[in-house]
Amino acid sequence: MTRRGEFELIAKLFAPLSKREPGAFALTDDAAALKPKPGHDIVLTTDAIVEGVHFLRDDPPETIARKALRVNLSDLAAKGATPRAYLLTAAFPSWISDDWLEAFAAGLKADQKTFGVTLVGGDTVATPGPLTLNVAAIGEVPSGKMLRRAGAEPGDDVWVSGTIGDAALGLALLKGGPASLPEKTRSALIARYRVPEPRASLGPLLLAIAHACLDISDGLAADLGHIGEVSKVAIEIQAGDVPLSPAARTVLAAGGTTLSDLLTGGDDYELAFTAPASSRTRIEALAPKTKVPLTRIGSVAKGRGVRILAPGGEALPLSRAGYTHF
Amino acid sequence: MTRRGEFELIAKLFAPLSKREPGAFALTDDAAALKPKPGHDIVLTTDAIVEGVHFLRDDPPETIARKALRVNLSDLAAKGATPRAYLLTAAFPSWISDDWLEAFAAGLKADQKTFGVTLVGGDTVATPGPLTLNVAAIGEVPSGKMLRRAGAEPGDDVWVSGTIGDAALGLALLKGGPASLPEKTRSALIARYRVPEPRASLGPLLLAIAHACLDISDGLAADLGHIGEVSKVAIEIQAGDVPLSPAARTVLAAGGTTLSDLLTGGDDYELAFTAPASSRTRIEALAPKTKVPLTRIGSVAKGRGVRILAPGGEALPLSRAGYTHF
Repeated sequence: MTRRGEFELIAKLFAPLSKREPGAFALTDDAAALKPKPGHDIVLTTDAIVEGVHFLRDDPPETIARKALRVNLSDLAAKGATPRAYLLTAAFPSWISDDWLEAFAAGLKADQKTFGVTLVGGDTVATPGPLTLNVAAIGEVPSGKMLRRAGAEPGDDVWVSGTIGDAALGLALLKGGPASLPEKTRSALIARYRVPEPRASLGPLLLAIAHACLDISDGLAADLGHIGEVSKVAIEIQAGDVPLSPAARTVLAAGGTTLSDLLTGGDDYELAFTAPASSRTRIEALAPKTKVPLTRIGSVAKGRGVRILAPGGEALPLSRAGYTHF
Repeated sequence: MTRRGEFELIAKLFAPLSKREPGAFALTDDAAALKPKPGHDIVLTTDAIVEGVHFLRDDPPETIARKALRVNLSDLAAKGATPRAYLLTAAFPSWISDDWLEAFAAGLKADQKTFGVTLVGGDTVATPGPLTLNVAAIGEVPSGKMLRRAGAEPGDDVWVSGTIGDAALGLALLKGGPASLPEKTRSALIARYRVPEPRASLGPLLLAIAHACLDISDGLAADLGHIGEVSKVAIEIQAGDVPLSPAARTVLAAGGTTLSDLLTGGDDYELAFTAPASSRTRIEALAPKTKVPLTRIGSVAKGRGVRILAPGGEALPLSRAGYTHF
């Protein structure tokens, strides 16, 4: 495909994704203009995903598109923000085909509908390097109320949504091991790696409840460390209470992974938050409402650092510290 | 440098760039929260620059940083918006050194001061490909007033800021030709390629005057074509009236370039706008106020397309259509 032909195809595929925001001007202008929602702050976040690091070249284009968007929606959810719009920059290598682009745009379209978010601008460049996708997402939160990593208090409970470690296992499966899993278990884990589930309905409901919140991208242990560091508190986790999926339990029981690997694996995109013990009933009521399981896994104390206690009560040695992002 | 060491250095260098916006939380959270300016819309734009395409690997890191930011500030200026904040995503190859990163951050710091804009978030990823920098810029404009590409009317004058073609000549010089220019001329042209001059003071003053406006990144001819297409009008330019720098005139006189090359070269980052003839006096008064030369180069008519008339009155054949961006 000629460069010019490619850019025309992209314009044709992407322009319809902008139509819910009239201020996106069908992507024909230099910028978008959005009217802020009265009484709200704008929440801004950006995350890039890179071929070979955050996804694999052979992943379906739909899931690559959805992952690029969802890792950002997960950040908005963790801040209690309601997603509104996004900008997309794509650095496309020469192997990208017409069919690939069409499937990619279809993935964006499906997730725009699921999460109520609209493409309002972007840029496309050619690259001799890996496919790289950058999304900048814009959300809205009641003025001054954004959830922070700071704010955890001694005595708080530590909670986590969903299950932990599935995405890391999914990536390990795509890379070749561990083998001999039932096909259904295998697909479930790979799906968790390819398409994270941003907790978009849960985040805004935590605004009046959580003291501190973030989404888990670097691994549960590392990310709780981030809350502890910024909040200037210590965090103690009961490893036996960390929620695992049936698939992860199967692999763990077969010796295909360790609890330490699951708690440091990354890419979970679940929410971890702290809240006072007096909020337990309110938090437990959120799970059926949002259909997102919520599990109490530990507590906040005075001091510094993250301690993860194995079921026997001894500290669990961690295999690695988790990824570090800027 | 280890990955971890590099990310720590980046955090150390970039966090101070965020301090003017308390809602950036010193880049220690998942997102930034900005309070919108009352009575204003948010203006959003994003542009990436890629090593080997928009800058060269040997360019000084300060100028690479400034170009990444400035191409976006130019879009905000073209929309009449006042810049406020930006997000930066960097895909760094392994050749990036500590010294390089320090110089890069110094370039951002200098331009933040010049343009009153603040880093509020970002992401850093490692890449085996070329250095790629993506900025998403956030500006503010009085509600409903953003300048558009649409809106040019038959009878309007066509105006352009600064001079045209210098950046394209600068790039040609960096690539080896044309030779034998005085060193001062040479440096002036290269500087125009490396560090565009966003017309940030001019843009907001055009809000009450211009009918249509954009910044010239794809070449004067192609970008006027964009105004014509979206505004559904024809545009006629007198090539002899297009403002050229003394350096460009020198190269042109020596046969080192053609008028057609200068009008299609791209990377000018000047503003092109249309306005009614009744505004001529007001527009002429803006030049001394903003210290940005403004030149009337043509007019808008009914119809479609861009016609560029050579000094003799015949249509100027164009060597190429200009770059196409999404």
